[in-house]
Amino acid sequence: MIRVAIIGASGYTGAEAIEIILRHEQAELTYLTALPQECGGVAEVFGRFKGRCDLEIEPLDFDKLAGLADVVLCCLPHKVSMGFVPKLLDAGLKVIDFSADYRIKDAAVYQQYYQVEHTDTANLKRAVFGLPELYRDQIKGADLVANPGCFPTGAILAIAPLLKDGLIETDSIIVSSVTGASGAGKNPSDKFHFPNMNENFFAYGIGSHRHMPEMEQIAGEIAGDDVKILFQPHVGPFDRGIQSTVFSVPKTKAGSGELTKLYERFYKAEPFVQVCGGAPAVKDVAGTNYCHVYVTCVKDRIVSFSVIDNLVKGASGQAIQNMNIVFGLEERLGLI
Amino acid sequence: MIRVAIIGASGYTGAEAIEIILRHEQAELTYLTALPQECGGVAEVFGRFKGRCDLEIEPLDFDKLAGLADVVLCCLPHKVSMGFVPKLLDAGLKVIDFSADYRIKDAAVYQQYYQVEHTDTANLKRAVFGLPELYRDQIKGADLVANPGCFPTGAILAIAPLLKDGLIETDSIIVSSVTGASGAGKNPSDKFHFPNMNENFFAYGIGSHRHMPEMEQIAGEIAGDDVKILFQPHVGPFDRGIQSTVFSVPKTKAGSGELTKLYERFYKAEPFVQVCGGAPAVKDVAGTNYCHVYVTCVKDRIVSFSVIDNLVKGASGQAIQNMNIVFGLEERLGLI
Amino acid sequence: MIRVAIIGASGYTGAEAIEIILRHEQAELTYLTALPQECGGVAEVFGRFKGRCDLEIEPLDFDKLAGLADVVLCCLPHKVSMGFVPKLLDAGLKVIDFSADYRIKDAAVYQQYYQVEHTDTANLKRAVFGLPELYRDQIKGADLVANPGCFPTGAILAIAPLLKDGLIETDSIIVSSVTGASGAGKNPSDKFHFPNMNENFFAYGIGSHRHMPEMEQIAGEIAGDDVKILFQPHVGPFDRGIQSTVFSVPKTKAGSGELTKLYERFYKAEPFVQVCGGAPAVKDVAGTNYCHVYVTCVKDRIVSFSVIDNLVKGASGQAIQNMNIVFGLEERLGLI
Amino acid sequence: MIRVAIIGASGYTGAEAIEIILRHEQAELTYLTALPQECGGVAEVFGRFKGRCDLEIEPLDFDKLAGLADVVLCCLPHKVSMGFVPKLLDAGLKVIDFSADYRIKDAAVYQQYYQVEHTDTANLKRAVFGLPELYRDQIKGADLVANPGCFPTGAILAIAPLLKDGLIETDSIIVSSVTGASGAGKNPSDKFHFPNMNENFFAYGIGSHRHMPEMEQIAGEIAGDDVKILFQPHVGPFDRGIQSTVFSVPKTKAGSGELTKLYERFYKAEPFVQVCGGAPAVKDVAGTNYCHVYVTCVKDRIVSFSVIDNLVKGASGQAIQNMNIVFGLEERLGLI
Repeated sequence: MIRVAIIGASGYTGAEAIEIILRHEQAELTYLTALPQECGGVAEVFGRFKGRCDLEIEPLDFDKLAGLADVVLCCLPHKVSMGFVPKLLDAGLKVIDFSADYRIKDAAVYQQYYQVEHTDTANLKRAVFGLPELYRDQIKGADLVANPGCFPTGAILAIAPLLKDGLIETDSIIVSSVTGASGAGKNPSDKFHFPNMNENFFAYGIGSHRHMPEMEQIAGEIAGDDVKILFQPHVGPFDRGIQSTVFSVPKTKAGSGELTKLYERFYKAEPFVQVCGGAPAVKDVAGTNYCHVYVTCVKDRIVSFSVIDNLVKGASGQAIQNMNIVFGLEERLGLI
Repeated sequence: MIRVAIIGASGYTGAEAIEIILRHEQAELTYLTALPQECGGVAEVFGRFKGRCDLEIEPLDFDKLAGLADVVLCCLPHKVSMGFVPKLLDAGLKVIDFSADYRIKDAAVYQQYYQVEHTDTANLKRAVFGLPELYRDQIKGADLVANPGCFPTGAILAIAPLLKDGLIETDSIIVSSVTGASGAGKNPSDKFHFPNMNENFFAYGIGSHRHMPEMEQIAGEIAGDDVKILFQPHVGPFDRGIQSTVFSVPKTKAGSGELTKLYERFYKAEPFVQVCGGAPAVKDVAGTNYCHVYVTCVKDRIVSFSVIDNLVKGASGQAIQNMNIVFGLEERLGLI
Repeated sequence: MIRVAIIGASGYTGAEAIEIILRHEQAELTYLTALPQECGGVAEVFGRFKGRCDLEIEPLDFDKLAGLADVVLCCLPHKVSMGFVPKLLDAGLKVIDFSADYRIKDAAVYQQYYQVEHTDTANLKRAVFGLPELYRDQIKGADLVANPGCFPTGAILAIAPLLKDGLIETDSIIVSSVTGASGAGKNPSDKFHFPNMNENFFAYGIGSHRHMPEMEQIAGEIAGDDVKILFQPHVGPFDRGIQSTVFSVPKTKAGSGELTKLYERFYKAEPFVQVCGGAPAVKDVAGTNYCHVYVTCVKDRIVSFSVIDNLVKGASGQAIQNMNIVFGLEERLGLI
Repeated sequence: MIRVAIIGASGYTGAEAIEIILRHEQAELTYLTALPQECGGVAEVFGRFKGRCDLEIEPLDFDKLAGLADVVLCCLPHKVSMGFVPKLLDAGLKVIDFSADYRIKDAAVYQQYYQVEHTDTANLKRAVFGLPELYRDQIKGADLVANPGCFPTGAILAIAPLLKDGLIETDSIIVSSVTGASGAGKNPSDKFHFPNMNENFFAYGIGSHRHMPEMEQIAGEIAGDDVKILFQPHVGPFDRGIQSTVFSVPKTKAGSGELTKLYERFYKAEPFVQVCGGAPAVKDVAGTNYCHVYVTCVKDRIVSFSVIDNLVKGASGQAIQNMNIVFGLEERLGLI
């Protein structure tokens, strides 16, 4: 049994990770931590675990952690994570990091978007980007996996086959996405107060969303060239899910049928990506680790679509998929 | 034109009152106030008033108020309101008070449920309870109207005909209600954070809700006797509306048909109460000042149902209905 | 591995059963059937099973079924089920029946509420009511389990300890419940058309809901006496969950503290019932097989509350809990 | 008083038109029609009109109509409308037509998208496109107004200033929109069954939505040149509203500040368009006739946003705005 610790277990991604590990046959929760004011019995912090998990969420004690865990799911916020990860690695623990701190390879771009200097560039270099569909071989046995952002996961899976085969112009990709409100995290705010968010829909992060450079970096690695992406997120009145519509310009005229075949080939062996015959729906993947994609041609554009659950394939599910790969387990464990 | 000021205009009931007065042919908004930190252009505070209202919400200035208004819709919280109302009345203004401060006639009961001593018992005595269907004659020309609570409005209208005719036992009435989330007000909180409240439903205020003594007082006045009510509120994942199901025990065997006729007679002349032939639905009254009621017999009980919009008939709509009555205007003005 | 067939697999309870069995370590799906017009690949019928289940939903073939399954989850509608169950039993299969056909022991009451004569009274007698918290010993090894209705499951668990100990009057119990819209099944209708049901809330089945006699029968068996229940269901704008508020009259004055202790003792060994310290919330049990209950005293009544997921503990989860018991498996298998 | 008839009054746009006319000081409803199976008291067809409107919805009788009305709001479906409009015009009635039948000027394009030959090309020529912000002068006194589609209304208002001033490339405009579920109309279907649509989000009409040629035609008239638009609609789990995000390529580098000023100048005198300083939210315009727009530069694109209520500014509200203009009334009547 792999012993799993969660740092920052009191948020939505922490809860989702607990939920998944409870069902995992070869992993067990051994240690949960949070800020002191958010500690307590896991069943008190999250009513849904009453009778299902009797662990305590405790303030972090490094020595205790090192003795109790083989792997750490690090659900700390951006900027905070890079202060903890070096110590976790030094203690010989495997780390799956949920923050953006180890995703952006270029420390200058990181500083531009996150407004702080990167303080752990050594580990930044060795971190593997945890999108198994593209980096599975590197994830195997890795010490530090940078779990991808939710929007990049959906967006990249929607266009990876096009980028890989060099079928689209790399300077004019537009990603328009919508996320459910759980993407905003658990802290109450005016915008996400129920009577404000319910029956509402709006764009946000216009021109400035931090997932934009992350998308560009990964898309660039796939394409083997610089890629420019205009990413526009929106939020809608539902809990879970991200739907992405991606507009791109084909280099040469393409047909919907051959594109579909390309996607089917590309994702053939993937356990969690399904190629659909029409627009995918958020509700079909909510609560699962699946990504449904669809590609077609409209006028002289290619339009591709994807849906994921932002808390599962977009966060905790993908983290555990990565954990399974790191430890050489069957990739679907806990995720069926 | 009646000049209307709103004190406490920055909350949901304030916004709803603004919305209604904007459509009112014989009333106009002249002065809006709020706490300093909630002031600003009304179109900035509430995006929905962009281009529709160019008033400022300002910190309260009594002298300015006295010169600008004929009537004040006082949307202050419980306990705060009774500190302001005496001055408003002294300045010769009519007051429709949204708080509970002038609803509970017995200052001891007020103190028990609101945990403070009543500081304006003189005006408490002269205040009229603003449920037009029962107190219309007293509301005409009144200086101070205590606008009813949202739950009491729905519950009382569901059983008033039974109480008036002495048809039910007065010691065993059970009111089970559900409100939309706007009933919790505009301040963000964990329970009403969208990802928590969405797809949720729960009871609250068990045995302690402050609308219970208000219901009992009004029901007692209608029945001419002490009335005991067990009131249990719930909250559901929708914005607006209150649905109440009231269980009572008939003194003598009653038939559904004759009860329906009784209700139709009782509410015949009422502009805002409709007797339905089946269970009323919240969505049919959302955004309106209407109350839909239905009564029937089940086994050896009478079960009656009502629906209202908590922000309209349960608050601002009823306040303006009261204002219309106070000033001798057509009762429906602004409320069609 | 226990081989599981589902008859009527194309509805919401069928889908939920498939979901659970996919996670079950000692059971596997072997045969899925539906009406001819609803057949097809399970991943086509329900988009969420793409890549997760490659079975076909086929028209029922009895011989095939008999060779492929050890147990049948029979998700057929009321009245239809009793036409199939005798043949299933004759073929030596264990049957967990989701319909009401084997729940009501008195064929005359069945006929009154379901408007048809019962055609399988022989098996009606041997059927066991599948509420494990009360009938676990009888369920072990049973051939035919009548899986309880969703509302009765929630309502009975909310008051079973009171009935068992004879603490409440049995002629004045009131159950007021609300269900999410999935309770209405998968067939589109005006009432459940999204723009009608969204932001709506209403009562239905007034005085006539078929779960009323089922509640009375089980409550009567627990109390060892006739029990009269007034049951009033409502529906709200959410997918999953049933919240029940139960009002009862104590025979002698009771205290909230001792009632809580009674409930804790009563449900101590139960894997799926949790006694809470306050009003339980639907969202805490959505997607799980858990029932959360709370009991307290208000004025001179006892008020108890329960929440379940109508499709899990109220249907398919409970069915698989029953299946586990019938076959002597660990009761939580597939349901963690 | 202008006498208003509504043909096809039993749908959502009919109901919204009734709601607005009830508040209109200089117009009154005189005649409502629908298919025979959808007739009845308006308060029976729509529970929300109980006590508010005692008209009957009747099968259409042309002679009666001609005697009772000055103007007809024709809410018939596409293809059906052009069979009725000629007779209405012949009877001397003004017509505001909600269908697409008189919007597309090129009968060949109409035939391509609506799959039938246009049978009233004579009136097609004289019809005025009812977007007051662009065609107000032509609408004044017009006999036949083609009320715009909901998506084109939002999309065009989001980019009209850019097109008018020739600031953007006309061959690469992308409109990505989301509508609330009321856009699908009142007929129940699988996709819009509450348990399917709730918590869901998906794209539809990929490459084929009929509002695409309508957008291109109007955009072309504004730009004075051919315009190519890729339009991709989505649907989300809310009742009302359309949010559009429009991506365009500036001909020369533009600044967000000057674009904002351009929009403010362009819409300065418009009673129902507001230029915002950030992403507009659907909930701010729900239930109103307003359109909120925002424009900014992102990387080397211009991104503009708009929100409207699909049933008000996107249908019935705009129709009554048009009616007010046709008859020379104050444009905001009934729409405040």
